[in-house]
Amino acid sequence: MNVSPPAPTAAAATTAPPAAAAAPRERLLEAAALLFYREGVHVGVEALCRAAGVSKRSMYQMFTSKDEVLAASLERAALTYWETLVPGEDDAPPRARILHIFERLESLSGSPAYQGCPLVATAVELKNPEHPASMVARRFKNMLTEYFHQEARRAGARDPEQLARQLTVVFDGSSARAVVQAQPLHGLAVTTATTLLDAAGLR
Amino acid sequence: MNVSPPAPTAAAATTAPPAAAAAPRERLLEAAALLFYREGVHVGVEALCRAAGVSKRSMYQMFTSKDEVLAASLERAALTYWETLVPGEDDAPPRARILHIFERLESLSGSPAYQGCPLVATAVELKNPEHPASMVARRFKNMLTEYFHQEARRAGARDPEQLARQLTVVFDGSSARAVVQAQPLHGLAVTTATTLLDAAGLR
Repeated sequence: MNVSPPAPTAAAATTAPPAAAAAPRERLLEAAALLFYREGVHVGVEALCRAAGVSKRSMYQMFTSKDEVLAASLERAALTYWETLVPGEDDAPPRARILHIFERLESLSGSPAYQGCPLVATAVELKNPEHPASMVARRFKNMLTEYFHQEARRAGARDPEQLARQLTVVFDGSSARAVVQAQPLHGLAVTTATTLLDAAGLR
Repeated sequence: MNVSPPAPTAAAATTAPPAAAAAPRERLLEAAALLFYREGVHVGVEALCRAAGVSKRSMYQMFTSKDEVLAASLERAALTYWETLVPGEDDAPPRARILHIFERLESLSGSPAYQGCPLVATAVELKNPEHPASMVARRFKNMLTEYFHQEARRAGARDPEQLARQLTVVFDGSSARAVVQAQPLHGLAVTTATTLLDAAGLR
């Protein structure tokens, strides 16, 4: 399959230390994605600016609020996450293209830096579905479900919409398990997804 | 089935306003469970004591740290959550006793106060598997898996241990979905669990 090499963490690109040479906006978003993922959405503006090497004044020239920084940094982390999980265009059968995502999740869950799905974590921590970052989380989760849906339909699954939602549930439940147990998934995500694919007649 | 009436939220007993007459320890734990669930684990000691009507001095006489309050209040909320989800001893077949839990989850997810599984939320927010509250979360999740395991074994499921872990994944993924989508589950938890039960030969 035409895929990029496995990334070691869920927010791979965000774990690199912000290069001092990068533009302030880039530095801020990189540092924000890393800090919010590692410590949570309550990280304050002071700590954020310190980590990014950006003044508060300069942050507020680029963004109107911390909420806006959070949403923009999650969008950025989500794109990297998406590229880590989803295979590029290739000739692999739909079943393999679906399982690819669960194999990647298994691999992510083995990293000591893994703190669960950054999208779910943000929504769970914010507890406010109207927050701009919760909307980013919802949009990317819907993209994942839509990916499953397309592949399931292409393979002639019995109820591709339902299968897609079920696979998203398995994805998020597996991520949650890896956090709660503080252990890799040891194949549980792949075997559970496989059971659902088999049950939907998707060989 | 011998079950108590459905509770409206995931932390049902914790949403009642602390009775002024209750002992300070009870008041503190009730207020803490409510606040941590509604706002997150970063709620400070000041806010906690204010909500409970307890002085900081008195809090520190009862608990050595906020972390200890968090763990004790989660333990308390988890017991209520458990009683909401798990049926009492009855003669219902294992399949019904397993699906009962997913039906309860469907019902919880319809409450506007629903913020996902309090156990998973705490672990996700703390990002520290050694925190005493993360250990409470893990212990209760393992109790849920053990419940599924016992029922699956009793019903002669093909691989009861794996089925139990898979059902826990569906439980947590469904809870996460309800938070991210800010919508009730509309049957998704029950149909996904049913698919897994069918696949394991558990009629």
